[in-house]
Amino acid sequence: MFQQLGLIGCGLMGASFALALREAGLVRRIVGHSASPATVQKALARGVIDAGAASPAEAAAGSDLLLLAVPVAATASSLAALAPAIEDGALLMDVGSTKRDVVAAARRSLGPRLAHFVPAHPIAGKEKAGLDHAEAGLYRERTLILTPLPENPPARVEAAAALWRALGSRVCQLSPEAHDAHFAAVSHLPHLIAFAAFQAVAAQPDGAAHLALAGPGFRDFTRIAASDPAVWRDILAANRDEVLRQLDFFEAELARHRQALQAGDAAALEALIRTPAAGRSAWTMGGPAACPPAAAGD
Amino acid sequence: MFQQLGLIGCGLMGASFALALREAGLVRRIVGHSASPATVQKALARGVIDAGAASPAEAAAGSDLLLLAVPVAATASSLAALAPAIEDGALLMDVGSTKRDVVAAARRSLGPRLAHFVPAHPIAGKEKAGLDHAEAGLYRERTLILTPLPENPPARVEAAAALWRALGSRVCQLSPEAHDAHFAAVSHLPHLIAFAAFQAVAAQPDGAAHLALAGPGFRDFTRIAASDPAVWRDILAANRDEVLRQLDFFEAELARHRQALQAGDAAALEALIRTPAAGRSAWTMGGPAACPPAAAGD
Repeated sequence: MFQQLGLIGCGLMGASFALALREAGLVRRIVGHSASPATVQKALARGVIDAGAASPAEAAAGSDLLLLAVPVAATASSLAALAPAIEDGALLMDVGSTKRDVVAAARRSLGPRLAHFVPAHPIAGKEKAGLDHAEAGLYRERTLILTPLPENPPARVEAAAALWRALGSRVCQLSPEAHDAHFAAVSHLPHLIAFAAFQAVAAQPDGAAHLALAGPGFRDFTRIAASDPAVWRDILAANRDEVLRQLDFFEAELARHRQALQAGDAAALEALIRTPAAGRSAWTMGGPAACPPAAAGD
Repeated sequence: MFQQLGLIGCGLMGASFALALREAGLVRRIVGHSASPATVQKALARGVIDAGAASPAEAAAGSDLLLLAVPVAATASSLAALAPAIEDGALLMDVGSTKRDVVAAARRSLGPRLAHFVPAHPIAGKEKAGLDHAEAGLYRERTLILTPLPENPPARVEAAAALWRALGSRVCQLSPEAHDAHFAAVSHLPHLIAFAAFQAVAAQPDGAAHLALAGPGFRDFTRIAASDPAVWRDILAANRDEVLRQLDFFEAELARHRQALQAGDAAALEALIRTPAAGRSAWTMGGPAACPPAAAGD
């Protein structure tokens, strides 16, 4: 049980964390800050937080648990604003989709408080951002990645893992480097592809007619193209080298398909399709191997 | 009300049609043929059909409604086998995902019976093929495309449209050429991209670890990569020129993303993302414009 959660950022991720923590009976009091005062008011009105804070530092005062849930671009400045106010023994986490850049910002900003920061990334979310879409169950049966720092006391990492497990998440530990490599493959590049694929269809002279006829396959394939553009600009920019590496793999595979199509080679096409079709049919999300074999799981 | 449905192909699409027609009370008797006798037995046991037929021609005898629901590769031979047995006044439809090739095969095979054939494409399906996954509701609230031939009497086209509307489908009419162009954009290329994207991730040395960490975004983005490889080999091969045209559009857009990433140009990235993100957020499947503006809808 935590005495006080200091929540910096009351959007979808932050507010859902507050609701989940409260539902699990894991916190006595929640103090929230948001860049927009209107969001703080709404969070108060909805009972997501018990008190508003005028700054990240004010949210940190008296808090033994801190969650930084702000856009990637605001992470560095928020960490700097928090640093002097982090209480002794407090646990600070973020929810960012990239980890090397967050760790670098923390090393620059947190100084002697670095050991308090256990970087976290919940593999959860929605296309619809904002407090209005927050829900206590957002993290349930979802994977949560911790990328602990050498400076973290093991007990603090274990407290972080236990907290997320109490919210229903499966907890995996990765290095920040491995995290960014994995998520370039299964999240960042897929978003980029979905943005490009939707735009390539919509921007054609016949785009409106194409879209009018699209069915459930297209709906699901492009769902992630509805994601927040500012958030994804930041993620793609922050993880640029790994995303480009994944783009190389994808373009090489796409070139094989183009070649088979251009040659009218049905056997080659089938050979290209058969392996991923079998692989995707056998794959299930968060299956027994929810943490990669090489990673220290829980 | 039809006296007898002759069903050629008792897989997912055909069996679902039979179940839907029966549920709607639109048919007295269903005679089914399938390449595999075991499938016919199973269709009988499940009550999908009332009687088995040893050949397409046997299923056609006495049927005033015929549905050809076989793999694309078997369409031409099935049409040829059916041709001499099509009854006067009977309505023959298919459910193929490409239309120019089916129409060409019908012109070669059906001779004087060509006027009976109203090509159809239901925008419905599942990754899991086969009779076992058939359901009466498969076509409900889905779009159904008819690509009528100049040879079709208008009353026959209207009967086809009325039948699908009675099963809950929204009916649009397109030329076979427009059909294949639209579906290359919103179905065929997306499948190719999904196959390539899944394979590009899975085939890496770290592929298993990548896949273990993938979340709901990746799950939905790659759902169509689990589709039947033989079916999609045939669709991609049959609609090759239009798929290649769509691949050109997609690769041009993807190249813009690569350039912005390589340049580390966050503003350019955001400009590329913002339009599709807004477009995909505003788009709904089968919305008010479920038939493209240029097409004769119902």
